[in-house]
Amino acid sequence: MTVLSLTDVRAAADRLAGVAHRTPILTSRTLDERVGARVFLKAESFQRIGAFKFRGAYNAISRLGPEQLRSGVAAYSSGNHAQAVALAARLAGTTAVILMPEDAPPTKLAATRGYGAEVVTYDRYTQDRTALATELASERRRTLIPPYDHYDVMAGQGTVALELIEEVGPLDALLVPVGGGGLMAGCATAATAMAPGIRMIGVEPAAGDDHARSLAAGERVEIDIPRTIADGQAISTPGDLTFAVNRRLVESFELVTDREIVAAMAFAFERLKIVLEPSGASALAALLAGRIPGLPERVGVVLSGGNVGLERFRALLGDT
Amino acid sequence: MTVLSLTDVRAAADRLAGVAHRTPILTSRTLDERVGARVFLKAESFQRIGAFKFRGAYNAISRLGPEQLRSGVAAYSSGNHAQAVALAARLAGTTAVILMPEDAPPTKLAATRGYGAEVVTYDRYTQDRTALATELASERRRTLIPPYDHYDVMAGQGTVALELIEEVGPLDALLVPVGGGGLMAGCATAATAMAPGIRMIGVEPAAGDDHARSLAAGERVEIDIPRTIADGQAISTPGDLTFAVNRRLVESFELVTDREIVAAMAFAFERLKIVLEPSGASALAALLAGRIPGLPERVGVVLSGGNVGLERFRALLGDT
Repeated sequence: MTVLSLTDVRAAADRLAGVAHRTPILTSRTLDERVGARVFLKAESFQRIGAFKFRGAYNAISRLGPEQLRSGVAAYSSGNHAQAVALAARLAGTTAVILMPEDAPPTKLAATRGYGAEVVTYDRYTQDRTALATELASERRRTLIPPYDHYDVMAGQGTVALELIEEVGPLDALLVPVGGGGLMAGCATAATAMAPGIRMIGVEPAAGDDHARSLAAGERVEIDIPRTIADGQAISTPGDLTFAVNRRLVESFELVTDREIVAAMAFAFERLKIVLEPSGASALAALLAGRIPGLPERVGVVLSGGNVGLERFRALLGDT
Repeated sequence: MTVLSLTDVRAAADRLAGVAHRTPILTSRTLDERVGARVFLKAESFQRIGAFKFRGAYNAISRLGPEQLRSGVAAYSSGNHAQAVALAARLAGTTAVILMPEDAPPTKLAATRGYGAEVVTYDRYTQDRTALATELASERRRTLIPPYDHYDVMAGQGTVALELIEEVGPLDALLVPVGGGGLMAGCATAATAMAPGIRMIGVEPAAGDDHARSLAAGERVEIDIPRTIADGQAISTPGDLTFAVNRRLVESFELVTDREIVAAMAFAFERLKIVLEPSGASALAALLAGRIPGLPERVGVVLSGGNVGLERFRALLGDT
């Protein structure tokens, strides 16, 4: 029955040891006083490539056999997964081809190439990236590393919760940003096994409430591509494999507005002295905006990434 | 002969244990590759009140006797020392009066009051703050806690280097931002005792080169009040007690321009994902700008503080 287990997450942790960063857990008296709980912030902004995505990508690639490694990997991503696969491939001694939108930020294209990957661009308004990536992988006999809907990817992301609970002990609730649901699926698998009774709470941008709707409907619902500043969470439907895990283990999906996300980014900057990208700040935003019903005493929050350029940061924070 | 010793710094560390944060030491492959050294960044931006100043203030206040604690303490500061003394006083169970310029940023005035201190303002263009503070302390029988020129303050600041070298082992060089010289005096005392042969290198804003000039002259030199964005280092002459230590233990004082400081703040934001105030970024700026002659293999850098509001950050980084 259990398709993904704590054992898988622990095995991923062994593969990641000495390769991924064991990211710091931040606490803040100001934050605790403000929300009335003891809060533990798992800062994946300090992970390699600046986001949790490295964990899943490396775990998946490190499980490939010699022949697969000779042929290389492929991935599609406009964001952090691109850099994650590029770096993980290089570290695993293989090559990567990454399909990216031709209008992706030049810094992201450059960063991905900087890790040694070949970048193939496409027009995101007219071409279907999944079909293109599948074709690309198959033509070149490369193994496709999906951004979330893959057990090894989920198991890798689950090491975030594993490290957090290993270090601070049991938690009453864990707040996790949700895009495709891979981070949540891995974290929920690890956390509910390590801390029985923990409340797993997903956080989505209000415009991208596909998980909230899907949980209510009891099945995956597809919405329009969300318009939100939380680009890492601008996904229109939950993953197939991730949702099978999350519908079973997640208590609720709470929503935050873009304005609340910006306020959380400002709080992170001024009070925590750290940089968070919009998606990376969404779970913190839910906490600060009082979106968690019956907030318990000991609360974990995943800060999932910090990849926001100065120019975009200045534009986003212009109104505060 | 030795007026300040590693023993004093260790005693300060005992007093600070469980009160000050043991701040994280950050490393960055990108940074190492860029400068060609193995760099260890001691991030005092994550210290209580957002800067190293808490260490010295708390160490000094915790050494006061019962009668002094009953009468309370006083300090003058337009910056981080104000909040440091305010918080340290509260934690030590005493009261603080802080003399601050009437045109200090409202957020700093509010933060100091927020820690429970009484704030007395003065006109920085017509009144002498040292005289005023001395008078204030004497009238109210309060103990004056100076921002740097005091052995207990220096010993507290020295715990920055103590923690760094305890954790990462011996270093070939340690780069420290220099304003009044208290952080450097404490760090140089600890570091040269723990890692004999370590090169202590101070970093000043180019406009505020009073330590560089003083070292060259063999005595304390006074310059005009420096115009620099590094407000924590805008001091016109080295401290008396600090310079007696630093002239003996510091190899050189290197200079960085405001533009180089802004570039280091941008690097910290985009690559390290952390927030640094201008003074807090100056030693990193010297490293990035290639200001360190014969850069050795293992280099420590003190990132001394992260107190910069969003509005000021946006204004400073506007040109990058």
